Amino acid sequence: MPLFDKLEIPIIQAPMLGASTFEMALAVSRAGGLGSLAGAGLAPDALEKAITDLRAATDRPFAVNLLMSERARPSADEVHEALEVLRPWYEARGLEVPDAPNDFALDYDRQFEALVRAAPPAASFTFSILTKDQVAALQAQGTTVIGTATTVAEAKAWEAVGADAVCAQGSEAGGHRGTFLAPLEDSLVGAMALVSTIRAAVKIPVIAAGGIMDGRGVAAVLALGAAAAQMGTAFLLSDQAMVNKPWRRSIETAADDPTRLTRAFSGRYARGIENDFMRQMRPLEHAVPAYPVQNSLTQPLRAAAAAQDDAQAISMWAGQAVKLAGPGDAGVLIEQWWAEAKDTAWALVKRTGA
Amino acid sequence: MPLFDKLEIPIIQAPMLGASTFEMALAVSRAGGLGSLAGAGLAPDALEKAITDLRAATDRPFAVNLLMSERARPSADEVHEALEVLRPWYEARGLEVPDAPNDFALDYDRQFEALVRAAPPAASFTFSILTKDQVAALQAQGTTVIGTATTVAEAKAWEAVGADAVCAQGSEAGGHRGTFLAPLEDSLVGAMALVSTIRAAVKIPVIAAGGIMDGRGVAAVLALGAAAAQMGTAFLLSDQAMVNKPWRRSIETAADDPTRLTRAFSGRYARGIENDFMRQMRPLEHAVPAYPVQNSLTQPLRAAAAAQDDAQAISMWAGQAVKLAGPGDAGVLIEQWWAEAKDTAWALVKRTGA
Repeated sequence: MPLFDKLEIPIIQAPMLGASTFEMALAVSRAGGLGSLAGAGLAPDALEKAITDLRAATDRPFAVNLLMSERARPSADEVHEALEVLRPWYEARGLEVPDAPNDFALDYDRQFEALVRAAPPAASFTFSILTKDQVAALQAQGTTVIGTATTVAEAKAWEAVGADAVCAQGSEAGGHRGTFLAPLEDSLVGAMALVSTIRAAVKIPVIAAGGIMDGRGVAAVLALGAAAAQMGTAFLLSDQAMVNKPWRRSIETAADDPTRLTRAFSGRYARGIENDFMRQMRPLEHAVPAYPVQNSLTQPLRAAAAAQDDAQAISMWAGQAVKLAGPGDAGVLIEQWWAEAKDTAWALVKRTGA
Repeated sequence: MPLFDKLEIPIIQAPMLGASTFEMALAVSRAGGLGSLAGAGLAPDALEKAITDLRAATDRPFAVNLLMSERARPSADEVHEALEVLRPWYEARGLEVPDAPNDFALDYDRQFEALVRAAPPAASFTFSILTKDQVAALQAQGTTVIGTATTVAEAKAWEAVGADAVCAQGSEAGGHRGTFLAPLEDSLVGAMALVSTIRAAVKIPVIAAGGIMDGRGVAAVLALGAAAAQMGTAFLLSDQAMVNKPWRRSIETAADDPTRLTRAFSGRYARGIENDFMRQMRPLEHAVPAYPVQNSLTQPLRAAAAAQDDAQAISMWAGQAVKLAGPGDAGVLIEQWWAEAKDTAWALVKRTGA
């Protein structure tokens, strides 16, 4: 695949809305990996500008991710009930319960149009699947199309619409699950099994994600046959991460086995370091409005808690191996991981007596 | 660790009660790997005899696994209710609901005593944890002690009682979960994350399990720093597997993403190919008696269904990557996987330009 051939280092920085930055993507792409912009948080004009700016800043390839969500039109009652559930959380922090917003997320359809116009080197998609025509429209612009899959069935679906590559999101991964075909509980496949089975089921390149924290992990997924390793949690303590103080502290001091899945923050299952909000909302989380409505309704709470240095009511997305995250410049980190992957390759030759 | 140094091939055949056999363990150990006897199904005398016989058949190391379960003393009412839930399943197959057995499983304490006397080269333990004295008693006999862990906390617990090694059972793994400290939902860590985090948390060797189906998988977990790869599902279609006809057919014709976790068959969570029993019992499975009681109560049903070539009421334990299982002699399979691991090591050197 042309795009992966252009990478000096087959490491993709995962798009992490609310944690990754323009500067992170730039540092990773400049170092020879594939940086990713989390495009979902940018209005169409800002999205186009970011792509233009990133192209101006580096001649290396980069990717832009969109979270595919339909326009939400919840009833007033549904929003009111959801806010009542959140009332004690708001009041405990001295806040009024917010009014219902007019829009619960940016307009994905207009984001997609802007993306096609801006024609980044690569674009990745999460939460749903493009049509064949949409994939073709991006490819006609020279954009490499990457789908996100949490099952073999989802990977086959992306291959069927013509995607250039598929990112296998193992159950270890932090942040939102990309699941779009089956229920969550049927779509939690560990990276070891997911990469192996998707690779056997599709002909397009497979990107491995989930639990990869260093050069050993990069070597491991390349051994499995992945075309590249996608890493997100491993960048959370990097210089270019936009991680608020209580979130950062929770990563640095994480207990063993610290993460859980929750849909209480956003209305879509995501993995993060467990806190009071996740624990106490667990019996209620099945009933909260679907993404992006709940995400929007908890946003002021999360912002206020972060400002109050309160780790118990913010979302702290992180993968299962978050304890292995370390500090550093994002570009230097991928160079170190790649050097470690090379060392691991030689160690493996020695270990196997090959 | 002395035992792993003696292995020509760092592949452990997972003990699989109801699927692995004496012949499988022998074939794997003779080929240079570490075969495992599923000791839990053997009465103390038979366990001692099997160990004696295996030692006589090969001078290579082998392991014996025990499932640690306390003596079950359910009330008559609990057993009656559980059998009533199973009544339609029995009657649909023309069977009477069985009487409650006097004993729901073999006596683990006596099995353990027999194991210490028989002093196999290695012994592995699942479902709970030994005391320091028990570990020391085995080690005094020359037996290498391997604990099973599904979380970092469990791995640390095994290290604390003096175990020689810990098997990291990733969430991909087929069969029963070894979880003993936290609830299931807090103990499903993908192998990529589990091996990496356990390796960073303990000093004893880590055995990787879950989703490893071929030489690429073996290379991958060695890259992560595992001392050996434990493979179970990969042996299910081998010549030495004891897998009934409908189970075998279900493996050979498995759909994409075919496995689920269930506690309906045994009272303990285990992963297998989903069938009608798992689906229909799902709303009730939280209420079935704990292992080994439910396991005992469904045993005649499973046996009858197997005899009737009925895949819908048998347990078909298998890991998430079961579609990659293939046929062959168990000893030849591990030789092929090891050759493939060597090839993978060189391919990785080339891929990384190291």
